[in-house]
Amino acid sequence: MNSVPIKLEVQKALRIHIGIFGRRNAGKSSLINRLTGQNLSIVSDIPGTTTDPVEKACELHPIGPVVFIDTAGLDDVGELGRERVARSLSVLSWMDLALLVIDAGGELLDSDRLILWKLKAQGTPAVIVLNKADRSRGASEAALRESLHGFGYPIVLVSALKGTGLEELRAAIVKTVEAGWEPDRPLTEGLVPEGRTAILVVPIDFGAPKGRLIPPQVQAIRELMDEGRGCLVVREDHVAQAISEMKVPPAVVITDSQAVKQVAEQVPPEIPLTTFSILMARSKSDLEKLSAGAAELPELRPGDKVLICETCSHNPQGEDIGRVKIPKWLMQKTGGPLDITIAVSKDFPLELKPYRVVIQCGGCMVTRRHMLARLRECESQGVPMTNYGVAISYLQGVLERTLSPFPEALEAWRSERQRRLERGERR
Amino acid sequence: MNSVPIKLEVQKALRIHIGIFGRRNAGKSSLINRLTGQNLSIVSDIPGTTTDPVEKACELHPIGPVVFIDTAGLDDVGELGRERVARSLSVLSWMDLALLVIDAGGELLDSDRLILWKLKAQGTPAVIVLNKADRSRGASEAALRESLHGFGYPIVLVSALKGTGLEELRAAIVKTVEAGWEPDRPLTEGLVPEGRTAILVVPIDFGAPKGRLIPPQVQAIRELMDEGRGCLVVREDHVAQAISEMKVPPAVVITDSQAVKQVAEQVPPEIPLTTFSILMARSKSDLEKLSAGAAELPELRPGDKVLICETCSHNPQGEDIGRVKIPKWLMQKTGGPLDITIAVSKDFPLELKPYRVVIQCGGCMVTRRHMLARLRECESQGVPMTNYGVAISYLQGVLERTLSPFPEALEAWRSERQRRLERGERR
Repeated sequence: MNSVPIKLEVQKALRIHIGIFGRRNAGKSSLINRLTGQNLSIVSDIPGTTTDPVEKACELHPIGPVVFIDTAGLDDVGELGRERVARSLSVLSWMDLALLVIDAGGELLDSDRLILWKLKAQGTPAVIVLNKADRSRGASEAALRESLHGFGYPIVLVSALKGTGLEELRAAIVKTVEAGWEPDRPLTEGLVPEGRTAILVVPIDFGAPKGRLIPPQVQAIRELMDEGRGCLVVREDHVAQAISEMKVPPAVVITDSQAVKQVAEQVPPEIPLTTFSILMARSKSDLEKLSAGAAELPELRPGDKVLICETCSHNPQGEDIGRVKIPKWLMQKTGGPLDITIAVSKDFPLELKPYRVVIQCGGCMVTRRHMLARLRECESQGVPMTNYGVAISYLQGVLERTLSPFPEALEAWRSERQRRLERGERR
Repeated sequence: MNSVPIKLEVQKALRIHIGIFGRRNAGKSSLINRLTGQNLSIVSDIPGTTTDPVEKACELHPIGPVVFIDTAGLDDVGELGRERVARSLSVLSWMDLALLVIDAGGELLDSDRLILWKLKAQGTPAVIVLNKADRSRGASEAALRESLHGFGYPIVLVSALKGTGLEELRAAIVKTVEAGWEPDRPLTEGLVPEGRTAILVVPIDFGAPKGRLIPPQVQAIRELMDEGRGCLVVREDHVAQAISEMKVPPAVVITDSQAVKQVAEQVPPEIPLTTFSILMARSKSDLEKLSAGAAELPELRPGDKVLICETCSHNPQGEDIGRVKIPKWLMQKTGGPLDITIAVSKDFPLELKPYRVVIQCGGCMVTRRHMLARLRECESQGVPMTNYGVAISYLQGVLERTLSPFPEALEAWRSERQRRLERGERR
C-alpha cells in the first residue's frame, strides 16, 4: 500500500464519504458492518431491508475519518421502492468513493450497469466488490469479471459473511480515494504578490469561541506564512487606521462576510477587497458559477421559493447566518416574504426545480468533490446556485467590489445579470 | 448548582486534576470508580491495595475533562509504605482539588489531620468526603464533623458502596473547583498600548501541522483582536522588511523561541522583543522567579545533574526542543557533558535536591495552579527552576533583550546573577 499523500493529511477534519450501492440482498449492510465493526443497520435475508441511506462513521487508516453510506437496493420495486432507488442514485453524485456490491454467484443486473454508467459519467472513484465469495461459482464469477472489465474499476472478491477479502478491500479503498482526491484550492492563492502584505479582518462579536479563531482565518494566516507573505490581522473597526499606517498598501483586504459593508467603507477603492466566504467558494467549489447564480437574487419576488443549504449542523460561524441573517436580508431586498426552506444535511433535496435559487453554505466540513457535485446537480435541474459568501456580498450591496479580485467571476455575474435584464424575465 | 464561569470554558483543553486522599481502606478506589463509572483500580477489603497513584480521566459536567488521581493510603506502614505516603503527599501539592476521604464510622486520624494542614498551608481547594454512610453511627459522625468543622471545607456524606450522596458530591466538586480556579494570565497583557500593533513571528519550519498554527499563536492573535489592537504576522525571514514598512513601529515583537536569535538581529534595539515561551512563563507561572532561576545556568559545569520536565508527552512544538535542542545547547554552553534527566510526566520527581537546576516546559496542557506548585516544590527544596522560554533565550544569548519588556523579571535575573558572581560560587 502506498503512503498517504500529504494533501490528505491536511483534510483530516473532513470526512470522506463512501457510498455503498448494489441490488437488494447483495450484502451491502453486512459489508458495511464488517468494514466499520459496528452493527447499526438491520441485516437480514429479506431483500430490501435498508430503506433510507444509513450513515456509519469510522476511522479508516491511513485516510482518517470516513462515513460509509448504506443505500437502498437499486432493484427495489413498487412506488416506495422507486423513490428509494431515486434517493440512492442522488446520493451517488456527491460520493468521494462508491462501492458497488455485486453477488459473486449471480449476474450483472441492469441496475448495476446503470450505476456503473453514472459513475463513469460523473468521474466518481469506485471499487467493485464481488460479495459472497463463499457462494461464488467459478464460471459465473469469470463471466461477471468479463462484463465488468471494460469499466476499468478495481475488483475485489470478499465474503462479508466469513470476513474474507476485507484487508484487500480496505487497501483498494485507500488507494482509490488517494488517486481520486480533489484537494481544495488554497484560500489565498494568487492574491498576495511576493514581498506584499494582506490585511485580514477578524471581527470578534461573532465567530469562534473565546481564545480561538475560526478555521478559514487560521488557514489563511498559515498559507501566507508558508508563502513568506505578511499578514496584518485587525478588527473591523480598525481597518482604516491600519491602512493609513502602512507605507506600502496591502495587496488585498480579506474580511469576514458579516462585516463586509463596514470594512468596504474603510478600504480605498484602489485596494482589492474580498471576503473569507468568497475565498471559500473558490477553494471548495466554482466561484464563477456561484457568481453567475447570484444573478438570480435580484429577480426574487415575494412568495418565491428559496432553498438555503447547510452541509452540517455545526456551522462554526454560528447558525444565525444561514437561518436568520440571510433570510432576513433576502426579504428586505425582495420587499416581501419569501418561501424559504433551510436544509441542514449532508444530503441534498432530490427535487430542486421548485426553488428559484439555491444558496449553499461554505462547506468547510465536506470535500470539494461533494460541493462540486451539488453545483452539478443544480445545473442539471436548471436551478441557479450561489453561496453564502457571494449572497451576503450582494445583499450588503458590495458584490462587484468583493468579486473584483476575480475578473472572471465578476464577468460571470455581470453577464448573467445583463442576460436577465435583457430578457426582462418576469417583468 | 451555579453555572460555570466563562473562564473555565476557555480551559477545556486542560484537564482539572482531582486527587483522592485518605487512610487505607477508607474507600478511595471505590469512590473513584463510582465517580468515573470505570473499574480500573483494584478494589478490595485488604488495606493498602493502591500503591502508586492511579489516574482515571472522565468528563465531569459542566467542568469538562478531569483526571481523578487515586493515591496510596496515608497510614501505610513499613519502608515501602512510607515511600508510598511520601508519593501521595507530593501529588497533593499540584492538585486543582483534593478529596479527603474519611470513614464516617471511624475517627479522624493523625494522617488525615496532616493532609488537612497541608491543604490549608498550600491553599489547595478541597472537599471532605465522609464515606461508608451505610456504616455511620450518629455519635461518631457528629464527633467527626465537630473535629472537621474548623478547617472550613465542605463535607459530603456518601456511600461509595451503595452509590448514595454522589450527586451532592459532584455538585460540591464543581462548586469548589470553580471557586478556586486560578485563570492563566493573558499572554499579551500590557504589551500593546491602544492604537498600536504587535508583530508576531511565526516560523513554519517547526511547529504546527500544515494549515494550522500552534495554540499560543492563535491565542495571542485573538487576545489582540479582543483588545482592538493590530497584529502583523510574519515569517522569521521577513521581520526587518515588515518593520521597515510600518509608519508607526510595532509596540512589541513576539517570536517563537527557536527563531529568537535570527529575529533579534532584525529588530532595532529600541523596539521591545520577547518570545511566546516567555509569555507562557508569565501566563502560567511566575516569570520573575523563573528568570532568577536561569541565573543558575551559567554556573553549570560538566557532570552537573540537570532535570528537564515536560508535563505531557504531546508537546505541540515537537519533542526535540526539550529532549534534543536544549540539552545540546546546554552542553555547548557548559563546554562538556551534563548529566541530564528528562522527566515526561504530570508528576514531578520527589527528590529534586540532586539537581543543580530544573528546566520546566511551558505547561500548556496543565493548569496555572499546577505550574505554580512545581515552582513552590523547587523553592522548598532549594533548587533553582527556570523554563524552556527563559532558558532558550539565555542559551541563544538574548535573554536580557527578551526580558526587557518585563523590568522586574530582568532585575530578578540580573540580581541573582550578580549574587552568584559575588559569591564566586564554585569558583
